[in-house]
Parts: sequence; C-alpha cells; structure tokens
Amino acid sequence: MKRILTATLLLALVAGAQAQPLRRSEITKHSVQSAILGEEVAYNLYLPVGYDAATPERYPVIYLLHGLYGTYADWETAGHMQDVVDELIASGECQPVIIVTPNAGDPDVHNNWNGYFNMPGRNYEDFFFQEFIPAVESTWKIQGDKSHRSIMGLSMGGGGCTVYAQRHPELFSSCYNMSGWLDEPELDPDMPKDKLYLVCQAIHEHNAIGFVSNADDATLEKLRTVKWFIDCGDDDDLIEQALRLFLAMWEKDVPSELRVRNGEHNWEYWHTALRLALPFASRNFGR
Amino acid sequence: MKRILTATLLLALVAGAQAQPLRRSEITKHSVQSAILGEEVAYNLYLPVGYDAATPERYPVIYLLHGLYGTYADWETAGHMQDVVDELIASGECQPVIIVTPNAGDPDVHNNWNGYFNMPGRNYEDFFFQEFIPAVESTWKIQGDKSHRSIMGLSMGGGGCTVYAQRHPELFSSCYNMSGWLDEPELDPDMPKDKLYLVCQAIHEHNAIGFVSNADDATLEKLRTVKWFIDCGDDDDLIEQALRLFLAMWEKDVPSELRVRNGEHNWEYWHTALRLALPFASRNFGR
Amino acid sequence: MKRILTATLLLALVAGAQAQPLRRSEITKHSVQSAILGEEVAYNLYLPVGYDAATPERYPVIYLLHGLYGTYADWETAGHMQDVVDELIASGECQPVIIVTPNAGDPDVHNNWNGYFNMPGRNYEDFFFQEFIPAVESTWKIQGDKSHRSIMGLSMGGGGCTVYAQRHPELFSSCYNMSGWLDEPELDPDMPKDKLYLVCQAIHEHNAIGFVSNADDATLEKLRTVKWFIDCGDDDDLIEQALRLFLAMWEKDVPSELRVRNGEHNWEYWHTALRLALPFASRNFGR
Amino acid sequence: MKRILTATLLLALVAGAQAQPLRRSEITKHSVQSAILGEEVAYNLYLPVGYDAATPERYPVIYLLHGLYGTYADWETAGHMQDVVDELIASGECQPVIIVTPNAGDPDVHNNWNGYFNMPGRNYEDFFFQEFIPAVESTWKIQGDKSHRSIMGLSMGGGGCTVYAQRHPELFSSCYNMSGWLDEPELDPDMPKDKLYLVCQAIHEHNAIGFVSNADDATLEKLRTVKWFIDCGDDDDLIEQALRLFLAMWEKDVPSELRVRNGEHNWEYWHTALRLALPFASRNFGR
Repeated sequence: MKRILTATLLLALVAGAQAQPLRRSEITKHSVQSAILGEEVAYNLYLPVGYDAATPERYPVIYLLHGLYGTYADWETAGHMQDVVDELIASGECQPVIIVTPNAGDPDVHNNWNGYFNMPGRNYEDFFFQEFIPAVESTWKIQGDKSHRSIMGLSMGGGGCTVYAQRHPELFSSCYNMSGWLDEPELDPDMPKDKLYLVCQAIHEHNAIGFVSNADDATLEKLRTVKWFIDCGDDDDLIEQALRLFLAMWEKDVPSELRVRNGEHNWEYWHTALRLALPFASRNFGR
Repeated sequence: MKRILTATLLLALVAGAQAQPLRRSEITKHSVQSAILGEEVAYNLYLPVGYDAATPERYPVIYLLHGLYGTYADWETAGHMQDVVDELIASGECQPVIIVTPNAGDPDVHNNWNGYFNMPGRNYEDFFFQEFIPAVESTWKIQGDKSHRSIMGLSMGGGGCTVYAQRHPELFSSCYNMSGWLDEPELDPDMPKDKLYLVCQAIHEHNAIGFVSNADDATLEKLRTVKWFIDCGDDDDLIEQALRLFLAMWEKDVPSELRVRNGEHNWEYWHTALRLALPFASRNFGR
Repeated sequence: MKRILTATLLLALVAGAQAQPLRRSEITKHSVQSAILGEEVAYNLYLPVGYDAATPERYPVIYLLHGLYGTYADWETAGHMQDVVDELIASGECQPVIIVTPNAGDPDVHNNWNGYFNMPGRNYEDFFFQEFIPAVESTWKIQGDKSHRSIMGLSMGGGGCTVYAQRHPELFSSCYNMSGWLDEPELDPDMPKDKLYLVCQAIHEHNAIGFVSNADDATLEKLRTVKWFIDCGDDDDLIEQALRLFLAMWEKDVPSELRVRNGEHNWEYWHTALRLALPFASRNFGR
Repeated sequence: MKRILTATLLLALVAGAQAQPLRRSEITKHSVQSAILGEEVAYNLYLPVGYDAATPERYPVIYLLHGLYGTYADWETAGHMQDVVDELIASGECQPVIIVTPNAGDPDVHNNWNGYFNMPGRNYEDFFFQEFIPAVESTWKIQGDKSHRSIMGLSMGGGGCTVYAQRHPELFSSCYNMSGWLDEPELDPDMPKDKLYLVCQAIHEHNAIGFVSNADDATLEKLRTVKWFIDCGDDDDLIEQALRLFLAMWEKDVPSELRVRNGEHNWEYWHTALRLALPFASRNFGR
C-alpha cells in the first residue's frame, strides 16, 4: 500500500515537473492510434524552450515529412534537426515552434505500405487529415489555424507536402518542398504489387505538376493563399520535376519561391534546406 | 630647354615604370578599330596585380558582356568588378586573370544598333570573333587557348555569351550565363525597325534554347566540352527561359550547373553572381 | 482669382495624391534646421511600400550612419540601399521600416567639422538627440519607442552608433556596428586643429571599448537591454578594435553577436553587411 | 585442392580489382603500430575517386583531428565528411586529396590518455611526427612535401593542429583551426591526475597564444610560411581564445584568416567549417 502511495506521489511530482516551462528544447517520441489504418503511427515531437503545458500560450506547428524507406526519426538522426531548430530559434530567425514528424513507412519494413497517399488497403491521407492532425493539435499546445500551420518534407515527403497543401490550401500557410518526388509515369498493371510499385502508382495518381496545370480558376485562387517554396539540388535526378512544377505554377500565376543550389539527393542538401525552410515558414506565420 | 629635357626624361621614367609589374590591379579603357563595323569599339580591361608586359608570363582571359542599353563600363561602375575581382584573386578563389568587357551598344544611343549578333547592316558577331578576340589577345599577355578562355555576361549578354559558346565551343572552356535573354518570339515584320525591334529579331534568330533542342549528335558532343553555368533569380521575368534552357540541356545530356537564387533582374543579382562566376571560370581553366 | 483657386485645387490634389499609400518604396532628401549647429542638416529618408501619411499606421525606424568624408547620400549611391531594403522587405526578412541617414560631414568639405560627437564649437551629439530624432520622428509616421528604434553605421558611423547606443541604451533596441572606428590614441595637442585632428580627438574622448571596460554595474545592466552586433572584415585595419570591443563586452557579460567575414574596409563589405543588419534589427523590434 | 586454387585465384582477382582506379571515394579504417606509445593507433583514410595504387600519381594530404572524448571516426560519422569532400572535389572547389584522421583518444575510454601532446608516459606528439606521418605517407600515394600537406582540426584538435604547425612550420602549407582549445590555466598539482587533468596540463604547456607572443624573429619568419585560418562561433566559450590568438598574430605581423560565424561548439559548426577548410587547404597546395 505504502509502495503504491509512493508511486502515486512520484507520478504527481513527475507531472508537476512536466508542467514547468522547458529549459531546453526536447524531441520525444509519441504515437497516434489510427482506426483508419488499424495501427499505431509513431511521430517525433520537437518542443521549444519555454513550452509549458500549464500556461495558455500556444505555438505554430510545422509538419515535417520524411522520404521513401525513411521513418519519423530521420529528421532527428540524419537531419540533426534539434541543433538546427535550436539555433534558428535562438537567433530569432525562426519563432518558437512545435515540429511534428509523422511516420509514413511501416514498423515492419517488409510489408507493402509506404507513402503519404491513399492506396488500396491503406488510406494514409485520410488518416493524416482525419485522425493525425486532430490528435496532435488537441494533445499539444498548438494554435491550430491555417495561418500558424506549415508543412514541409524531403523527396517522397516533398511530394507529400506539396500534394497535401494543394488539396488542402485552407489548412496551411506555407509549404516547403525539398527535392520533391512529384510525378511518376504509370506502371505496367501486371507487375507484382510490391511496396515500390504501390508508392509509384500513388504518386502517379497524385501528380503534383498536373494538379496545377489542370486546376480551374477557383482552385488556382485557393493555391495562391499558400506561400510555396521549391528547393532542389542541380545534381538531383528530381531537379527536372522541381523545375516543371515551378514552370506550371509560373504559367498559372501561382507565385512560388524557387531555389536551386549545388547538390544532390542527400542529407547534405536537406540539412541545409532546413535552415532556409524554417525561417520561411516562420516569416509566413500569422500573415 | 632644360625644362623640356627634364619632361622628356620624366616621360621615359614613367614609361619605364609602366613596364614594371603592376602593384595594384587596374581597369583601363581601350578600343579596337573595326573594319567590319566601320567604327571603333571600346572595351574596359582589368589587369591583375603582377601583370608585367616585359615578362613572358601570360594569363587566362574572361570576356564579360553587358546588357541591353548598357555599355562596356557597366561592370566597373554598377558591378563594382574591381573590388570583387581583387578580393577573389587575393583569397585564391580566382586565379590571376585578365577581364575584357567589350561594348555592344553604341556610342550614339539614338541609333539602331545593339546586341551581340549579326544584323542587317551590323555584323557584331563577325567583328567579335574575327577582329575583337584576335586584337585583344595579341595586344595583352593572354594565353589565348580554349582551356584558358571563358565567357560570361548578364541579360542580353547572358544570351550573348551562351550563343557565342554554343556556336564556338572550340574557343571557350566555360560559359556563365546570368539572367540570360535567351529567346524571343518573332515580331511583326511590319513594325518600325527600331533598335529594340532589331535586337529582338536577332535574339529570335539566335534562340539559345532551340539551338540545344535541335542540335545533332556531333554538335552536342562539342557542347559537352564546355562547362556551362546558368544563374537566374526566381523573381526575374527571364527565369522561365533559364529553366527551359537547363531542361533542354538536361534532355540532351549536356551537363550544366544551375543556380536559382532569390532575386530580380538587377545589379544586386549580378554583383553577387560575379562572386560565383569568377571562381567557376577559374576552376575550369586548364582542365 | 480663378488662377488662385486652380492652384489651391491642384495643391489639394497633390496632397491627396501624397496621402495615398506608396506603391513603390522611395528615397527622398530632407533636412532639419539645427539651432545647436546653426545650420541645416540633410538626411535621406527611405519609406517602404504602403507608407501612407493619411493612416494611423506607424513604422519602426533605423538610423543608418555614414563614414568619414562621407555624406548622408552614401548609403543610397554606394550602398545601393534601396534595392537591398526592398528585397529584404519583400521576402519578409525585414519588416517594413523607415530608414534615416543623417549627414555628419559638412556641406563645405573644406571646413573643420566631421563626425558624430560634440567637439569644441560643434555639438553634433546634442543636435542628434535634442533636435534630429525629435524632428524626424514627429514628421514621419515612426513608432518612436526604444523597442522600435535601431541604429547602425559603418566605420566612423560604426563608432558613432556604438557610442550613441552606449550612452543612450534607453533609446535603441539594437545597434549594428560595421567596421567601426571605436578608439583612437590621444593626439599631440600642438598639432594644427584640422578636420581629421578634431574627429580623432573626439573619437579618443568617446572610446567605445573603454566605455565598456570602465562601466559600473548599473551601466552594464542598461547595456544588456540593447541587442549588439559587431561585424568587421578580417582584412580591415579596424578588425583589432572590433575584437577588443567584443572581448571587453564578453569580459563584462554584455552579450553581443560577432561576425568576422572575409573582407576589407570597403563598400563590398558594407553592402553585404546591410543584408545581415536589417534582418537583425527587424527581429529585435518589439521584443 | 581445387578449392584452395580457386580461393587463391579469387584473392588475385580481388587484388587486381583493388589496383584499379577508384570509381567512388572511400573511407576505410587502418592503423599504425607505435613503438613510442606501445599500442596500435587507428585512423580513417579518405581516398578520392580515381585513386590508383598502380599508377605514379600522388595526392596532397590533409590531417584532420578530432576533439576531446572523440575518436578517429567522428569526422566520418558526426561530420559527414565523405559527402562534403565528394561534393567539393566534384565541383572543383577542392582538388582530389587524401584525408587522414588519426585517433588521439584511446580505445579504452577509462584510462588516462587523451590529446595530441607529449605527456608523462605518453608521447603522442613524438609518435605523430616520428611514426605516424612517415608510416601513412609511405603507405599511400601521398606527395609528402610541405607544399602539399595541410593540417586541421576541431576543439582539442584545433589546438592540436595549431601547435603542430607552430612547432613544425616546415611541414605544413596551411593550418585550419576550428573552435580551437588553445590555452588553459595551470591546474593545482595536487589534484588527481585523471584524464582531463592531464590534457589540461598538456594544453597549458603548449599554449598556442603564448607561443606567438613569445616567438623570436626567426620563429615568426617561419610561421609566416604557413597559411593560417582561425574559425570559431561567436556563441562558443572558446571564442575568446580564438580572438586572442588572432590578435597575437596580428601584433606580430603573422597573417591569418579569421572567420567568426554564428554558432556554438558543436557539429553544426564543424560540419559547415569543413566546407570552408577544404577549399582553403586546396587553394594553398603547391603555392
């Protein structure tokens, strides 16, 4: 009995400790139980210095997406996001922000699922908008309006963030696409339906370039409410897709920033891109 | 009498002094008398520290072209080239180099001529290759081979350098195109043949993008002997031309660097571009 | 009579025109009549896009100081400030701001006066704080509180802004010192009292490094209410002064940013510095 | 028997394969057996694309040192050196080079040894110059003269490379010190002689700043034969040491580059520093 009381007391103390403002930023792992996917989806959460569950202060949020064969943890381990974000917040180049990196691969790397779109048997996009955003934004002190929500990602996640913001311009103030996988030709339907086949098909069906070229005036007008940023290395095989997307938007008078820097499809590029992306998102919060 | 002798002696001393190695870089104005154009064509000449007409040492050369309505003097006055080049040579980022900025406007701004191409009545391209390069390279201590010759320019000069290097890949080791004016639709032939009409027509006839798309294999193979660099601001109306040129070269497997930075069609952009262009040319000398 | 009425109507129309929001930024020349100096002091005024005398909206202000032998016009002509500020405001890296560049040389370059400090016979510092700031801030739509006022300058103006913010920390939220002239040994008092002698003496008497080293705790506490930034090229003769100022502040726990970039004491350096300085000032407005 | 023959044949084929030019850069682990230290010292070796043991071509070499509590592997794992070096060589900003990262910690982290200097019982500096350099440079195709040898390092390795180049200016063309640990006050000799005590004492005895201040003219003249580069973040506790070293060199007319960028004592800073350090070393090879 005494032991149980002590444990309860300790829990209360821990909870009390958690309620104090953070003195250092932290990245912690969490998950959302998805009815749509029938599984638990992991995510990393960056909380800035000063975050305090006990006060009314709320923060803007950035959804930061990983690439093919990647996981929710990549931005922390390979992208060194904590050092980058801490430095940019300390210098004032990025305002204090909450960053969320959802998992879009699978815990079991041998199965079929991957990517940000609905596929036969796995409606990840439904999960993202119907379950993930609501769960995350009701759990943490997030402002939760379009003007304080941004989305960004690399490669498959660059395509993911672009399509998400194209289809839900009412939800995001800005979208930063790094080395985005934006288009894919239709595959032979007789091929085995493995993981790569399915994600290629999903990207084919969610062609971000065609979306712009085929958009009607009402859609284009909505696209113009998002601040777009396209960033791709000139030695990246996907540079051609990045330029075609920019030209399609140019053609349709949908303004977008474009940066082509020296570089390939690798973490050197994305690591540096994060230093451009966070201030960009920050400058467009609340506008 | 004595005074005259003294003056003569002083002049001789000054001449002797000029023959010594330069202790500071200098930009001086010169000209080439053109039989083809029937006029004198001015140019600025940058000579690096250590240049000495009396020694056998020779230098690589960069031809640096100005834009529409500009003159040979723009890179000195608006582009601050002396400070930039001095600094890059001092740091070792650019090897000691001679820079030549030919005039492609006209002394009389009210007449019809402008641009780098042959037009009815003004064969500037013929002048450039048949008269200008030979005159300059025999007057100054220039190495004068493909591997030590580079060409670069801004706007109309960005188109000019690109087309020159496309048509004479045997002459240039590298070509750096800043905010290049690369293409122009055909104009109504009934319009008055003013200066702007003529330069638009000349650019239409020398379409740098079509040149690549229509090149045969032998031409493409020659293009691959030049190091290309395309640099254009994302807020520049010409960005669409820059990207189409890059995509045409990509399609044809002609490698080119590409940089798209934040910026417009102005000297802020070209001033910074020079800091990228000179090291690029320098790294490709003698390769 | 009719003519007079027409003129009045025209004036009203002009005033009406002026009262509309600016569609392009503008730099215009103005002056303040100084009783303290007994002369009219010129300044350039940068007004951002959207400035509108007829609305209640007010802007933060930056005082931007020139160097020895310079004038109020240098930042426009040699520093290309309009292009730089326009670009930074357009990208959101700097919030819309009013910039004021006061003259601290003299209309007659042959007389004795120069610099930002009180000298025997010319009390410029008194003028600046008692006449100039009040006149400017009551004429234009400036917020006019510490948290929305910044000061910056180059060379003699780098020293000037530093000393002004040291002596009036209650007036400035930030201070950005470029290649600052911060200290000078005492000159032989028997030397002729020419312009250079007088400014050297004034700088000797306003030694910015000694100010920090000798500051008492109350003064240090006030210095900590200003965001400081020291920026100097490593090939600048004044780099030693910049580093000694930083070390003096370090010793006294007065936080300061420091950047040492490749460069000399020239406009290449200050032109680039402006791109760092404006976002720094902007990030610290309203903090 | 047949199996053995086959194995022998395979080994010969593998050896043959190894003798071909490298098609991709590689980092491999090696070691040198030290009689002086009585142990085997590990190092990583970066070989550039095209390296071929079978041809006479030789390369410049860079010794790249790690920090306190670090190991020879840090520059690969935390500094991502392969991607950085590959990119810089591909762009021509760094010439093809061999990079060597010696271990200066210990395989057993619990024992006393650490650092680049001779200590009672562990003469690492003797090992480095008498055993390590000769072994490495006779094993790999390294040019092996002063003009093609550079040394660089971070933190404890920043101090290490500085002191090595100060004491052996005849061996290095350039030295790039990142966030260097350059000085340490004398410790109480009664303290326990643990690892940290010993390295602090060694750094106290090899004070890089005092070395310059106390150098005689002949030594200073030798120091001027090395190209120096000091790079430290303005939020790094060691910034004060970096500035004092620069000022000591300035006082003695020993030229050094200096860069102070925004940043702390972390891999974000060193990762970026490598992008400056390699071109700097490269530009100074063969000068």
